[in-house]
Amino acid sequence: MEPAANTAAKPIRCIVKLGGAAITCKNELETINEENLKVVSSQLRQAMISGSCHGMDWSKRPGSLEIPSVIDDFNDQEVTDSKKFIIVHGAGSFGHFQASKSGVHKGDLSRPLVKAGFVATRISVTSLNLEIVRALAREGIPSIGMSPFACGWSTCERNIAVADVSTVAKAIDTGFIPVLHGDAVLDSSQDCTILSGDVIIRHLAAQLKPDYVVFLTDVLGVYDRPPTEPDAVLLREIAVREDGSWFVLKPELKDMNKQVEITVAAHDTTGGMVTKISEAAMIAKHAIDVYIVKGATDYSLRALQGELKENIPDDWLGTVIRLVK
Amino acid sequence: MEPAANTAAKPIRCIVKLGGAAITCKNELETINEENLKVVSSQLRQAMISGSCHGMDWSKRPGSLEIPSVIDDFNDQEVTDSKKFIIVHGAGSFGHFQASKSGVHKGDLSRPLVKAGFVATRISVTSLNLEIVRALAREGIPSIGMSPFACGWSTCERNIAVADVSTVAKAIDTGFIPVLHGDAVLDSSQDCTILSGDVIIRHLAAQLKPDYVVFLTDVLGVYDRPPTEPDAVLLREIAVREDGSWFVLKPELKDMNKQVEITVAAHDTTGGMVTKISEAAMIAKHAIDVYIVKGATDYSLRALQGELKENIPDDWLGTVIRLVK
Repeated sequence: MEPAANTAAKPIRCIVKLGGAAITCKNELETINEENLKVVSSQLRQAMISGSCHGMDWSKRPGSLEIPSVIDDFNDQEVTDSKKFIIVHGAGSFGHFQASKSGVHKGDLSRPLVKAGFVATRISVTSLNLEIVRALAREGIPSIGMSPFACGWSTCERNIAVADVSTVAKAIDTGFIPVLHGDAVLDSSQDCTILSGDVIIRHLAAQLKPDYVVFLTDVLGVYDRPPTEPDAVLLREIAVREDGSWFVLKPELKDMNKQVEITVAAHDTTGGMVTKISEAAMIAKHAIDVYIVKGATDYSLRALQGELKENIPDDWLGTVIRLVK
Repeated sequence: MEPAANTAAKPIRCIVKLGGAAITCKNELETINEENLKVVSSQLRQAMISGSCHGMDWSKRPGSLEIPSVIDDFNDQEVTDSKKFIIVHGAGSFGHFQASKSGVHKGDLSRPLVKAGFVATRISVTSLNLEIVRALAREGIPSIGMSPFACGWSTCERNIAVADVSTVAKAIDTGFIPVLHGDAVLDSSQDCTILSGDVIIRHLAAQLKPDYVVFLTDVLGVYDRPPTEPDAVLLREIAVREDGSWFVLKPELKDMNKQVEITVAAHDTTGGMVTKISEAAMIAKHAIDVYIVKGATDYSLRALQGELKENIPDDWLGTVIRLVK
């Protein structure tokens, strides 16, 4: 079996965004939502790998002097087939404090505070990356942490300028699952900035054309107003035209003004909803389905497994954003 | 002040190898030698930075809910001048277990054990990298972790094939201190292998031509036989010819046969000494001084500060390997 040659032909199945809100405790500084991360990791394994698998984090456990004995019962003849996924995670309660306190996104590395904040931000987001890689590896997912900064990615005027995906593609073709993250990067016009996980996903999707993209978040999907408001309605399906414009297909909005209202909301008072949909639409216009769904639920498992590619079951809750056929 | 422009002209001063033996506890699995790492980090700061500096690891401390308040007393107007260093560390008690148990260096990713070992090795070495970056950042060194795998470095027949140093160079020119490490990487002839910290240093030195290279280790320097043996003699100065061949200059070896014996020792029964010298000679032949010295000592501080460039003081203990003039 030559996995590199075998799998090179297969297209990338899915790019998954682990939203910061889904895997960290938003209001607790640098705290992982361990329970959610464990469920999400297990769902990713189910969606990715057929056949049994072995734990791949052979680190010493805290408080223990010994390495787990996982390798003693290793069946080295086993053939497992794993689908090609890329994982990108946000920062959640990691990195945000350091970045915003120092203003990394505004640039200017001649300011000691910005330079220190850049270093502090990278330490925080890479420590989250390591923990996520570990959680995935414990499930048997051959995850490989890859920091955009180290990959040599950089921006100009805060937009991606250099972001060669060949190292990521090579890692996938060799059978690994790259795990990228929102990162502090160099910017040719303002020294430095923050490259968000969402922008990374948009870039990877445009370059590598996965079958579908799944955003795991902490609410059921995208609503017509902040989901905390009592009458918020979950938008089930959004249709995207080839030019990137979009409209809500399901539910049918009785009030036609409302449709317009959502579309034009200038200041995005809808809890970032318009931004979120517009970004997803940029991916969907390449004929790549986008699913926004609550992580660690039955809905997220079904989305990751690609169950929604053909039709959207009535008992599935989440937001599907796809090109009008 | 525009540090990116200012510092771009300056050559790289020093590449430092933090030997695994110097910063980890060799015989305790995945255990950092915290005391040594702290002293080494402090010495690196003294050698690199003139002027005061601020802690750059703003992570939550274990057991604490709060972020350190380092940023409250930040003097954002301060100008500090920092010399260009690159740090490369070995694995010590991190990664070796995982790599050797699975045979990552022998390649063949179609074997589940090798693939899992590759993932486990990377988790172990990147977790050490993160802790070293943290220790340096706490001292105020603007350290940036950069994994060779993520940098896109790869080998062919276990020799470096692709290892673009431009991302490393850009990080230095922007005023950061890159921290690389021995890593598991892809190999075009055998799927994968281990790229050692020593090979990385040789490559970086040849490409970036630093003034000098310092190897921090756990013994005083290179001896004529394993340093545990009672009559072992510290080799103070080794002269390298332009073709990479070398001879011991100090101490003068009374027994001329001994000189020959060291040079030809086929099986390197001298505790890896011949290999060590030969590798250092590959760097020294580019007219780059190499100092092998015990970490966290007064000798290592003086080596890092470049005190040996002109002449080697009699009260300095270590091994200098340099081109014959």
